[in-house]
Amino acid sequence: MNLLSGEVVLNALAAATTGQVISLSMPIRGATSSPAPTTIPHLRGRPLPQHFMSVDGGDYAAGVRPIGAGLRVADDALLVSPHGTTTHMDALCHMWSGESLYNGHPASRVRSYGATRCGIETVGGVVARGILFDVPRHLGLTHLPADFRISADLLKEITDDLRPGDVAVIRTGWPLTWARSPDEYWSGQPGLAADAGRWLAEHDLALVASDNAAIGGLNPRQLADETLADDLHLILLWRHGIHLAEMLWLEDLADAAPDHPFVFVAAPLRIEGGTGSPINPLAIL
Amino acid sequence: MNLLSGEVVLNALAAATTGQVISLSMPIRGATSSPAPTTIPHLRGRPLPQHFMSVDGGDYAAGVRPIGAGLRVADDALLVSPHGTTTHMDALCHMWSGESLYNGHPASRVRSYGATRCGIETVGGVVARGILFDVPRHLGLTHLPADFRISADLLKEITDDLRPGDVAVIRTGWPLTWARSPDEYWSGQPGLAADAGRWLAEHDLALVASDNAAIGGLNPRQLADETLADDLHLILLWRHGIHLAEMLWLEDLADAAPDHPFVFVAAPLRIEGGTGSPINPLAIL
Amino acid sequence: MNLLSGEVVLNALAAATTGQVISLSMPIRGATSSPAPTTIPHLRGRPLPQHFMSVDGGDYAAGVRPIGAGLRVADDALLVSPHGTTTHMDALCHMWSGESLYNGHPASRVRSYGATRCGIETVGGVVARGILFDVPRHLGLTHLPADFRISADLLKEITDDLRPGDVAVIRTGWPLTWARSPDEYWSGQPGLAADAGRWLAEHDLALVASDNAAIGGLNPRQLADETLADDLHLILLWRHGIHLAEMLWLEDLADAAPDHPFVFVAAPLRIEGGTGSPINPLAIL
Amino acid sequence: MNLLSGEVVLNALAAATTGQVISLSMPIRGATSSPAPTTIPHLRGRPLPQHFMSVDGGDYAAGVRPIGAGLRVADDALLVSPHGTTTHMDALCHMWSGESLYNGHPASRVRSYGATRCGIETVGGVVARGILFDVPRHLGLTHLPADFRISADLLKEITDDLRPGDVAVIRTGWPLTWARSPDEYWSGQPGLAADAGRWLAEHDLALVASDNAAIGGLNPRQLADETLADDLHLILLWRHGIHLAEMLWLEDLADAAPDHPFVFVAAPLRIEGGTGSPINPLAIL
Repeated sequence: MNLLSGEVVLNALAAATTGQVISLSMPIRGATSSPAPTTIPHLRGRPLPQHFMSVDGGDYAAGVRPIGAGLRVADDALLVSPHGTTTHMDALCHMWSGESLYNGHPASRVRSYGATRCGIETVGGVVARGILFDVPRHLGLTHLPADFRISADLLKEITDDLRPGDVAVIRTGWPLTWARSPDEYWSGQPGLAADAGRWLAEHDLALVASDNAAIGGLNPRQLADETLADDLHLILLWRHGIHLAEMLWLEDLADAAPDHPFVFVAAPLRIEGGTGSPINPLAIL
Repeated sequence: MNLLSGEVVLNALAAATTGQVISLSMPIRGATSSPAPTTIPHLRGRPLPQHFMSVDGGDYAAGVRPIGAGLRVADDALLVSPHGTTTHMDALCHMWSGESLYNGHPASRVRSYGATRCGIETVGGVVARGILFDVPRHLGLTHLPADFRISADLLKEITDDLRPGDVAVIRTGWPLTWARSPDEYWSGQPGLAADAGRWLAEHDLALVASDNAAIGGLNPRQLADETLADDLHLILLWRHGIHLAEMLWLEDLADAAPDHPFVFVAAPLRIEGGTGSPINPLAIL
Repeated sequence: MNLLSGEVVLNALAAATTGQVISLSMPIRGATSSPAPTTIPHLRGRPLPQHFMSVDGGDYAAGVRPIGAGLRVADDALLVSPHGTTTHMDALCHMWSGESLYNGHPASRVRSYGATRCGIETVGGVVARGILFDVPRHLGLTHLPADFRISADLLKEITDDLRPGDVAVIRTGWPLTWARSPDEYWSGQPGLAADAGRWLAEHDLALVASDNAAIGGLNPRQLADETLADDLHLILLWRHGIHLAEMLWLEDLADAAPDHPFVFVAAPLRIEGGTGSPINPLAIL
Repeated sequence: MNLLSGEVVLNALAAATTGQVISLSMPIRGATSSPAPTTIPHLRGRPLPQHFMSVDGGDYAAGVRPIGAGLRVADDALLVSPHGTTTHMDALCHMWSGESLYNGHPASRVRSYGATRCGIETVGGVVARGILFDVPRHLGLTHLPADFRISADLLKEITDDLRPGDVAVIRTGWPLTWARSPDEYWSGQPGLAADAGRWLAEHDLALVASDNAAIGGLNPRQLADETLADDLHLILLWRHGIHLAEMLWLEDLADAAPDHPFVFVAAPLRIEGGTGSPINPLAIL
């Protein structure tokens, strides 16, 4: 909330032209709860979401009695470790170097019961102009190759219409590889080059979002391997306090091919002390 | 998304006048992860959220080595059963009577691996005009008493400016009792009377939201005790397919005292087959 | 395993006279999974076990197809925080004072990914002579009062037949209060006095087990309030490396009224780095 | 408990000769909590155990204040889906064909809140003579090949000393392949042939245990592919009510090479309505 003045928000809302609302989220598909449990892009080795029903229609089919006068209810539980498993937003406490978080808060305040500094519950919500950088479309590709690093110059070729408070939405197309082969998806990931991160940081954005898993690229061991100076999380999240959103599903937005800014809304769950939150970002064209 | 045409969305966005963004969500405070684990309003006996850190600043203080060149990361997991424990939205599969869900889908499709009909992942997002019914303020009360049932006439006294696709936001003030005494919070809950539910249903709303736990009222056993014909979930969710959002935090919105509609946004997580989702609804004034 | 030489184990097995096997465990009853979710003794405010079925008979009643030729399977998941919620055994890493665990291991080795020193997986199993101290029966009571602290002299009155490697099983009867009133159960707990802990420690036992929640007593705030020198966990677990088992169900054993030692077996799950484990201890008379 | 008369138990205890206690359990290694998260044999695609610390030594290193006079405590939570992920015991409600569980109980009693018939909490404990069938050793192999099915004749060659109430412990050596290659482990599994299951069933055993994942063999898709008549779970668990324990670690027991029966103890957690339980079975030689 504090990211955005009322004027910036009103300007953002003015970007809508058709009122079409597009979800930028992958489904959350539970490891145990689905007939097709592993068909969603995710980083290898991460604990997948688990979704459990504590009462469901099957129970009534098996003879469970309704509540009171005849109500039937289905109820459930979700376990989710958002980083690397689903569309999510990073809190400012998610990554740092040395002893201090963004803005000098001591990293020792991030404890087993949660972060008392820079937790995801401090975000409130993001309502901003969204700018789509559809890099593979610009290059005539279906998706970027795994080792592709997006330079600042390439972003500028697409657009330099970035204002303070905007959200830059970076499409790599990499999630499309999943349907072909999870092993290909895990073979690395395209992402921003360090100079692109610095260029975005100069614009005082509210958020940088991407359909890849780490904003920057990943090597085949699923690690970012830039130096500390060039690490994308450190540039954006740690040095500049710019929130990150990762693992978005941008194909529907890309198909709509907006040639102008849109309204971007993300409302992370107010998980007290959380390092991030699963989100369902919305684009309003 | 299919709830709302582009025109309705554009009209909704036009309701914003100052650009102030207010979160309508309570914090999610974990049962195990907080120094103050039980200070959030919730229904008695429900499994509280649990929030775990899988790596945190304490680990680095204890000597864990950074990743690669010197990155430090905090990561976590959240377990949440949204109904009754935190701000959430109900899927259309959450409640029914007899053998069929809303729109005639067989209830037997709601199984342990999730609902293949009417799950929360089908919602996409809600972007609508929000209309605040601040019932206690209208009556000169801090909060409604536990046995108060809000009639249609009382809602109409506040406003009858409801259009198709709007979101009715019903404030009872009941969460304020929690700070005084959880036992008082658990002694019952005020909520809509059946005729109010029917009146709202007539307006073809996108969503009815409230700061109470069940839209309708609850008795001291924390149960709705209307007849099947008069049950608020059945009237709104089951018969009319109007989504419900419960356990909102409306005090900040009430303090802003909007005397006109605002933009209401809710983006439930796309939990495949889920009966609901925790949400962080936003009001944009 | 290293606790017990082969000779001690063979002596323990020789204690059996009738071959009757009695479980000393309470049921694990899930917070979400039971029609009667809160009827098991537990400490107030602790996260209760949660038990979820990922596929069950209800699903087949609702039309799920069998596997392959016609197999039907039920599968489930358990979430448990054993301390304070169910019958469990404490690892040596569970409690300490200052910077070091039992035996001087640095406490900083107990991290978010588990304890690399003194975790529960190092126990293996306990096969020992069990000696029942049925204190309320000795005093002609149904159960001890909440503020009762069991002295060394009182234990000695019951028996002083304790050998190295034995398991002392201390009955207070306190779980019987639960059926009358959870509030009474939560009003405090009887337990060992410090001098009783010291006397037991002198005997080089393998384990001290009790039906109370903390071996020592608890005040109405559910805290042990002895000084550091007199704290029962510190005396037994930390200073002497004697494992503890708590929240046993001893009523069936008490009804059998063994007037001689029996075989006591406990096999904690080999949870790597765990601070404890739920257990189902067995008495073989 | 009802499986075993006192006489049978006393006979079992008499099998011990050296008092050596050997754990037959793999460690439980959490998916999120370990520096080496996936190095334990498990079936592909199953949700791995998750182990979380809710307070640990790192928190104190980061400045968390001790409790009261100076106590420090570590506490944790375990989430486990035992089938296919760790050493566990199957309840009689785990598998069936048609509409009825073992002994004619309706399968519709196995619901989302647990099984009210044939749940794991009814087992109590198993204290029995254990008989090791070390099949690869008998054949001069390190481990059996993936497509090996152990016939009744082969078991009889090893020993026919089986009495009612005994536990047959079948070693395949298959877990040894894991260290070489998880893909090899997942390429199939050796196990009992149907006639071996029938021969064991004739002996009225208390339990059949194995180091493989399904008692019978598995094909490369990790499925049992016998007919319904020949399925090992149906023969043993469903038709004869003989409990099963799977994914044991038998290498330490095999190294001890017992040439005579031993004491076998397993004490499943009393998970109310559970389809199984993680266990730490003990062999007492």
